[in-house]
Amino acid sequence: MNAPLTRRGGGRRARVAARSAALAHDLRPVRAGLTGGRYNPLSDAEVLRIHRAALTALEDIGLSGAPESGVKTMVAAGARLGDDGRLRFSTALVEDMLARAARNITLHGRDADHDLDLSGSRVHYGTAGAAVHMVDPAGRSYRESTVQDLHDAAHIVDALDNLHFLQRPMVARDIPDALEMDLNTLYACCSGTTKHVGTSFSDPSHVDTAFELLHLIAGGEAAWRARPFVSNSNCFVVPPMRFATESCQTMEACIRGGMPVLLLSAGMAGATAPSTIAGAIVQSVAECLAGVVYVNALAPGHPAIFGTWPFGLDLRTGAMSVGSGEQALLTAGCGQMARFYGLPGGSAGGASDSKLPDMQAGWEQMCSNVMAGLAGVNMIYEAAGMHASLLGFCHESLILGDDLVGQALRCVRGIEVDDDTLALAEMRDFCLNGPGHYLGTDQTLGRMQKDHVYPSLGNRMSPKEWEERDKPDLQDAATRRKEMILSIPSAARFRVDLDRDIRARFPIHLPAY
Amino acid sequence: MNAPLTRRGGGRRARVAARSAALAHDLRPVRAGLTGGRYNPLSDAEVLRIHRAALTALEDIGLSGAPESGVKTMVAAGARLGDDGRLRFSTALVEDMLARAARNITLHGRDADHDLDLSGSRVHYGTAGAAVHMVDPAGRSYRESTVQDLHDAAHIVDALDNLHFLQRPMVARDIPDALEMDLNTLYACCSGTTKHVGTSFSDPSHVDTAFELLHLIAGGEAAWRARPFVSNSNCFVVPPMRFATESCQTMEACIRGGMPVLLLSAGMAGATAPSTIAGAIVQSVAECLAGVVYVNALAPGHPAIFGTWPFGLDLRTGAMSVGSGEQALLTAGCGQMARFYGLPGGSAGGASDSKLPDMQAGWEQMCSNVMAGLAGVNMIYEAAGMHASLLGFCHESLILGDDLVGQALRCVRGIEVDDDTLALAEMRDFCLNGPGHYLGTDQTLGRMQKDHVYPSLGNRMSPKEWEERDKPDLQDAATRRKEMILSIPSAARFRVDLDRDIRARFPIHLPAY
Repeated sequence: MNAPLTRRGGGRRARVAARSAALAHDLRPVRAGLTGGRYNPLSDAEVLRIHRAALTALEDIGLSGAPESGVKTMVAAGARLGDDGRLRFSTALVEDMLARAARNITLHGRDADHDLDLSGSRVHYGTAGAAVHMVDPAGRSYRESTVQDLHDAAHIVDALDNLHFLQRPMVARDIPDALEMDLNTLYACCSGTTKHVGTSFSDPSHVDTAFELLHLIAGGEAAWRARPFVSNSNCFVVPPMRFATESCQTMEACIRGGMPVLLLSAGMAGATAPSTIAGAIVQSVAECLAGVVYVNALAPGHPAIFGTWPFGLDLRTGAMSVGSGEQALLTAGCGQMARFYGLPGGSAGGASDSKLPDMQAGWEQMCSNVMAGLAGVNMIYEAAGMHASLLGFCHESLILGDDLVGQALRCVRGIEVDDDTLALAEMRDFCLNGPGHYLGTDQTLGRMQKDHVYPSLGNRMSPKEWEERDKPDLQDAATRRKEMILSIPSAARFRVDLDRDIRARFPIHLPAY
Repeated sequence: MNAPLTRRGGGRRARVAARSAALAHDLRPVRAGLTGGRYNPLSDAEVLRIHRAALTALEDIGLSGAPESGVKTMVAAGARLGDDGRLRFSTALVEDMLARAARNITLHGRDADHDLDLSGSRVHYGTAGAAVHMVDPAGRSYRESTVQDLHDAAHIVDALDNLHFLQRPMVARDIPDALEMDLNTLYACCSGTTKHVGTSFSDPSHVDTAFELLHLIAGGEAAWRARPFVSNSNCFVVPPMRFATESCQTMEACIRGGMPVLLLSAGMAGATAPSTIAGAIVQSVAECLAGVVYVNALAPGHPAIFGTWPFGLDLRTGAMSVGSGEQALLTAGCGQMARFYGLPGGSAGGASDSKLPDMQAGWEQMCSNVMAGLAGVNMIYEAAGMHASLLGFCHESLILGDDLVGQALRCVRGIEVDDDTLALAEMRDFCLNGPGHYLGTDQTLGRMQKDHVYPSLGNRMSPKEWEERDKPDLQDAATRRKEMILSIPSAARFRVDLDRDIRARFPIHLPAY
């Protein structure tokens, strides 16, 4: 897209030729599952203090609100039910359940190429949220989000290299019936992308019907259970330290059906969690450890993501704030705690408080995204498209977010140090054997694709070229790419016969192809 | 600016009252000199490999191009001059000079409140560069930069909390005479801000005249030498591995006059430095180590900043690129190397390839700024306002950069972990003694200012409030703040009698007040 500023004849042609060859997947400069963890916001001693404080909270304070079934399961495993209705957990119980917990899990895509390996500090970026508005950046306006918007988001994510999963980022507000909304959410996401899908059921009674749909898509229950391509985001606690009764029932139903769960604790630091970063992390860790006990008492080793998702708050106004440095630290600190437990960890990064995809959105989204990646968070949710402190989702911003996350991933990949990259021989050759330039060397040409992440829409033109090309606008470019992606059907769409079967059994609101 | 979304009567009034009280400087949530270094892009072994490769480069390849005076000084110190005209440096010589090198230096402001303590991993953000254009974001246009633009930038930096120094970010292109340009650059910067100023003399013959001006501003040579408030950015090498003859002569003159120097090695990875991140760091480290030998052979312990500034390149086009993830890694890796040597380190972070202060600019500026801070770079140059791969400077972006850097600084400050912040007692109280909310507690109120960085212009309104307030635009807000700052004279301006003396002796182009 950007033409050369300096023209060097053969050299340039060689570069363009090298660039035009498609790269094998394993040679791409960045990809899903790069290993993070070079950034440790906490010292080892601080990690231990947070761990011990969380254990104390579980032992002394415990959690209220568990459904009867959960109380029964957890008490049988060794939790104590107090006269105050709170379940308390000994350190020994937590340690036993941590020992049982699933590690190094895989989250499947409908297409196996999109499987996510959540071992070690492997990093993945994707969407999430429950936005209720769509942002129209050209019109600078907000409107209610629809199931078509959701499907379009899935379709777009399917086309973007640097977003590795689609958790449903917005609510289909045009479907008033809650069961129909849950089913259509699944349909809209799964027919838009073959990447791993996250959803969040609004009622425990919906889960069995949803499994019918998922079995149909998978080709039967056995196929579903072999490769479950949808996980459920369970807000299983209402912070502080209270189980969300219905959401726990939903979680139990998901587990019975073989669906991986995200144990999501979303306290707001200063409102439903302590206002300090350390305190909000302690509470979130304590709540998620209670979730680990719950899941592993019910189904030892069931895949569950340690979902410490504390959010920030603007203490001046009491309004949620997700784009701050404090938010980036909350997320990175949580990532380090999940690494300490050796559990697959997921937290929220990349959301913005800004209403539009402007400079503020750029700096806010990068700050928490790159810090979460460097801290080795396995699943970075809300990584793209999210505005207005989670209230608005924007397709253009989602597309620009792919560029943004591409650069964050390059940072996660880090600096390779070996004899080849140290480049001493190259340096000696150029300095001693004649005036040289590194640009045309085989080493440079060989690395121009596999080492460097080039922006799709980010603009690197000189001011002169930019003027000559009528000053291309970033947002316009994103809108054009959106229209291009959506102008052809998603490659993830269901086979015609499957789609017919689904529509025969379920009230699908999206039009057939 | 943002009104409350949830109204809680007394609670809100208490918060507003608490917010309205000015905070003492040491209670501010972020400030100059916060300690970074929690992020280590390189392992200890990798740091050593880079160090050894740099030593090998100095021993085997050496540097050409030193001026006669420099050859004499360095050979006297133990460097070997080869038949090929290259100076080579033994490891023993480099180690001896590293032992002499100034550590934990202070860069002075004209106002002592702005002194910069470059000890340990203390982090400071400021401007830098040699942009030749000014960006008009409303008109989406570029024009040549002038001395008035430069003075305005200084004036604006003086008013911004999170930018700690002003290295001249642009060239006064309306002053054709090179000596007059250098003198007016100093005047424009120093009369605009009392923060530390960085400049870059265009010719060694200008330095003595510049010192006359600086002595006049300081109130005499002794006062200048006691608190030199200007440093010189010396591009003392032309990478790869060649001394820049004239710039070295300039550096010698600066050192004689007691001016701290920035040993700036600005290789372009893939053109004048190896295309690999590790290789570009090796070469930059080698060149700066040669600079350390030079400075300390000439004047042991003279304050010098280890200025490893490798820049990225878009290998497809051969054009410079400063906004990439590769750039952030170059800068962070260099920061870790300076920490390894225990030297004050300075590198470039925060510049953008985008032509305008748009979303791309936001993500690019945050990426390298926050990573440089977390890596503990003492002086982060180019941190705000810089566009078009260093060709354009933008006042509005500079102002927005203050918000951006504020959040980066919050990240550098990190997570405090102590009994108070772990908040167990608070958590217990709320969970066990009645349904509670953390918002109104003394702990939360007490921390609402000293723990949290609130954006000046970044917008945290809900979509509803944003609409009700006519959808405020980020860039417009920056323009209004710029106009407000520039509508009153800079507090840094010279006393009338001093200004008269300066104008009597030097051809000052800016109008008198």
